[in-house]
Amino acid sequence: MSEQRRVAFQGEPGAYSEMAARAVYGPATETVPKDTFDAVFGAVESGECDLGMVPLENSVAGSIHRNYDLLLRHNLYIVGEHNQRISHCLITHEGVSLGDIRRVFSHPQALAQCEHSISELANVQVIAESDTAGSVRLVKERGWRDAAAIASERAAEIYGLAVLQAAFEDEKNNYTRFVAISRDSNGEPDGECKTSIAFAGKNEPGLLFRCLSAFALRDIDLTKIESRPIRGVPWQYVFHLDFVGSTKEERCQRALDHLNEMSTCMRVFGSYRRAAPGWLADEGA
Amino acid sequence: MSEQRRVAFQGEPGAYSEMAARAVYGPATETVPKDTFDAVFGAVESGECDLGMVPLENSVAGSIHRNYDLLLRHNLYIVGEHNQRISHCLITHEGVSLGDIRRVFSHPQALAQCEHSISELANVQVIAESDTAGSVRLVKERGWRDAAAIASERAAEIYGLAVLQAAFEDEKNNYTRFVAISRDSNGEPDGECKTSIAFAGKNEPGLLFRCLSAFALRDIDLTKIESRPIRGVPWQYVFHLDFVGSTKEERCQRALDHLNEMSTCMRVFGSYRRAAPGWLADEGA
Repeated sequence: MSEQRRVAFQGEPGAYSEMAARAVYGPATETVPKDTFDAVFGAVESGECDLGMVPLENSVAGSIHRNYDLLLRHNLYIVGEHNQRISHCLITHEGVSLGDIRRVFSHPQALAQCEHSISELANVQVIAESDTAGSVRLVKERGWRDAAAIASERAAEIYGLAVLQAAFEDEKNNYTRFVAISRDSNGEPDGECKTSIAFAGKNEPGLLFRCLSAFALRDIDLTKIESRPIRGVPWQYVFHLDFVGSTKEERCQRALDHLNEMSTCMRVFGSYRRAAPGWLADEGA
Repeated sequence: MSEQRRVAFQGEPGAYSEMAARAVYGPATETVPKDTFDAVFGAVESGECDLGMVPLENSVAGSIHRNYDLLLRHNLYIVGEHNQRISHCLITHEGVSLGDIRRVFSHPQALAQCEHSISELANVQVIAESDTAGSVRLVKERGWRDAAAIASERAAEIYGLAVLQAAFEDEKNNYTRFVAISRDSNGEPDGECKTSIAFAGKNEPGLLFRCLSAFALRDIDLTKIESRPIRGVPWQYVFHLDFVGSTKEERCQRALDHLNEMSTCMRVFGSYRRAAPGWLADEGA
């Protein structure tokens, strides 16, 4: 893919989202940091950036709901996906040892993923920050020698701090699925494809079963289903679904027509090339 | 229900979980604060407390995944549910006005639910804490007159601070569904019941469709489906399901037998009386 595109991501340089953008679009890609996921979607919608790279799901912690909600609120397409291996490092100043650490800073998600490792450090306070790489910057800028941050190895490099312990995450099978969002839909993606959609229907017995029949009766494989509450209507849901196949395939188009008939609203975010599952790809690396 | 039971909850006195425990078991109930959800499950399992009251889902923010995971890890039953209206207050010292506020403290979930209201305060820093009521205590103890906390009205009362603005949440249809957990299953709950289960199956096309057929073919109404990643097996899921009915009813028992046949593992957390939907109950209050 082109290396001249501007790709928005949430966080600071060294964030996992930025690593995902570089992995997909090449290390020369211009990555544009944004404070919030809302700002990433906004930058793509306004044309400030060509693409956005946002996480939808972590294999340990689960879905990043905010981004499912933002997909519904914005009029953008999903044009690609990437499975990023998440390996957290415990990062601090050169010369600081494990026994010196009294405070650990990171994003709540990263703290949760290192819960057990942190509990093995004696007598430390855990402090939530809005960003993993931002926590590294904080420990660096303040010169705190009793503190460490949990973030990527790349964040340690960027801020010139040392990796005190690598692979600090409790569960090594830790991957985040990112999607690339764009104002323009994919043309005709080649290779095996996935399609992402959302739908809602009248809350009556068997609704989900009938909706899933559109895919099951055509042997279309679902890779993910997620329900999100509809704002203002307690305990009613919109379902997000990913399936294997492209809207260019007739059986998929028929399944979507069938689903459209049974649901009260439906949205197709687009078809894109299915990413290699990170945990197999890594074997050969 | 008895008022002599000890009910564990996560957070500090004044937390919404404590309000839910008092709403279900009466204001004289002995409520036992715990730092973490893990500690709540542990206190019930060890017999230190008779019951635990834990949130499973918020109507705006979605599921509290940690508690779904803890249900699977512990050998406890769900014996009741309660829909608690969540109305956040902006809380600070007597005499402080909106224009004085430079910092707002609360749990990330509460901060997210008040995002728009906070954005209308000019020039404030938003700081995440581990607890809503604990944020009120912090503002009180430190004597900060440029800070406010977002928490329940009851938390303001407990710590003797003032409510600067009530109904501070962006979306007024804001409810949290709590469940009561116990070492002992319910006997024969009366009235309309719900049952909570979890299951997983071999990852093949149509798995979820076939599993849902056990309920759809018997006209059993599902009220909630949630998928959670299985640790160590990227992109494979365990499904949590709630349906209307009790394991004492033959058609429900047949549906469970049918599901058990199609899944690789299944767990029944128990049947309990279906709670009034909070947003209707409140109309008459």
